[in-house]
Amino acid sequence: MKEYTTYERKIYYYETDQMKIVHHSNYIRWFEEARIDFMKQMGLPYDEIEKRGILIPVLEASCRYKKAFRYGETFMIRIRLRKFKGVKFSISYEVYNRETGELHATGSSEHGFVDRNLRPVHLKRDYPDIYECFAAAVSDENEAE
Amino acid sequence: MKEYTTYERKIYYYETDQMKIVHHSNYIRWFEEARIDFMKQMGLPYDEIEKRGILIPVLEASCRYKKAFRYGETFMIRIRLRKFKGVKFSISYEVYNRETGELHATGSSEHGFVDRNLRPVHLKRDYPDIYECFAAAVSDENEAE
Amino acid sequence: MKEYTTYERKIYYYETDQMKIVHHSNYIRWFEEARIDFMKQMGLPYDEIEKRGILIPVLEASCRYKKAFRYGETFMIRIRLRKFKGVKFSISYEVYNRETGELHATGSSEHGFVDRNLRPVHLKRDYPDIYECFAAAVSDENEAE
Amino acid sequence: MKEYTTYERKIYYYETDQMKIVHHSNYIRWFEEARIDFMKQMGLPYDEIEKRGILIPVLEASCRYKKAFRYGETFMIRIRLRKFKGVKFSISYEVYNRETGELHATGSSEHGFVDRNLRPVHLKRDYPDIYECFAAAVSDENEAE
Repeated sequence: MKEYTTYERKIYYYETDQMKIVHHSNYIRWFEEARIDFMKQMGLPYDEIEKRGILIPVLEASCRYKKAFRYGETFMIRIRLRKFKGVKFSISYEVYNRETGELHATGSSEHGFVDRNLRPVHLKRDYPDIYECFAAAVSDENEAE
Repeated sequence: MKEYTTYERKIYYYETDQMKIVHHSNYIRWFEEARIDFMKQMGLPYDEIEKRGILIPVLEASCRYKKAFRYGETFMIRIRLRKFKGVKFSISYEVYNRETGELHATGSSEHGFVDRNLRPVHLKRDYPDIYECFAAAVSDENEAE
Repeated sequence: MKEYTTYERKIYYYETDQMKIVHHSNYIRWFEEARIDFMKQMGLPYDEIEKRGILIPVLEASCRYKKAFRYGETFMIRIRLRKFKGVKFSISYEVYNRETGELHATGSSEHGFVDRNLRPVHLKRDYPDIYECFAAAVSDENEAE
Repeated sequence: MKEYTTYERKIYYYETDQMKIVHHSNYIRWFEEARIDFMKQMGLPYDEIEKRGILIPVLEASCRYKKAFRYGETFMIRIRLRKFKGVKFSISYEVYNRETGELHATGSSEHGFVDRNLRPVHLKRDYPDIYECFAAAVSDENEAE
């Protein structure tokens, strides 16, 4: 079973708003950063996937905010591939404060595989290597629990 | 029963990404734009609320993306105040293409009322006028359905 | 001589940072909003230009911040086409507070015309109608001063 | 003479636009990331400076774009403290592609020191330790050239 490292970085000043906390829209962007990092660990660098003609748009995204992040803090995201059905996959996110270990937010996203004209692609038939990467990663995740 | 106008604007170029569609994180920002416009129509300009010491952070946000927006298009958001319990409220969003009338996305958000130190405020006791605005708006909405 | 209307809108909450002012990077985005609005008034809707295969990247951008904008305020941008040489053009921006009329910032940008592979295009030969729009607008501007 | 490390990171997907390059406004944000990293190396973590009541707003920012960045690339910023006069300082930026070493952009910014009400502070008298850090860093830089 493969081990995945968590994704972390310091908060940027421009991510704060006048409540003196991180603006909530940025968590959706952090999920993307963490997801792309995770896919790279799966063996699927996103820039190479796009070069082969596959786009992976977001079908759904959500976040529950439990505790605000403040400037000066570092977030850490633990990611899990929840489902993979060949045409779609789901991911869950846990966002921690790296210093305190406290859980600040949870979230999820759902994604599809499409071509450059945003039409669904038949992953198993046309891109079997990518299909296998996802199938392996989702089974790793299930073992992990 | 009060009539609320929808919120609309053209898409900005900087909201697109290299899929040649609007980046999904922007919808969460559009919800904020529409929500603040809606609250103004309720009689609650957000800048004045903050000046009185009340912040309204986001507790949860989600979006389901049905059809991508492209540069050159205008979005239109129809908003509804779903619930109001004195300490929290929920809003739902429908995002349409103004030209075609087609529904491109739906979403929701949940919010609380806190003071500048992010501690819950007792709205009914300490800010009865704001409490009444929300209570009236949620009942308008229920009649509307 | 053609009259151009100024570009204005309310500040969005997500544009503030924890200094409780608009984050400086947003002015560069406002310049883009105003520029695209100005080009539309020139008869050159940017989405249609891109559909014809021309991109107009930014070669230089700058902003001088004189007075901060705060949430609740409305900015107004006065734009001028400064130079047009067939391969490049320059624009200047004045950013006012609409309520007070006070000048909050000034800026400039320089742009080129390229094809989808980011190679320069010969505007006068290949897109004479676009060339003429720019030539007319720059002469309007010079008369205006 | 102190050695400063350069600032680098991978480009985020959400930083691209539909020209399939990084949107130009992001460079202004990168400058902020690099500047804050640089100040930390100077011994001045920005979050601690703000806790002491000093804000460092941007008075001017500019960027010249020589070559576009594409998704999948890593930028690297070399920063220099150009001037420090006690009330203001200037910084210059060189933005390289880490893989190729090619210079993609140059920029500059100017900053002042103010209190929470955006009024200038007398750094040398009221915050001599911060004054000394800047004075030392600017002299390091001058020796370096």
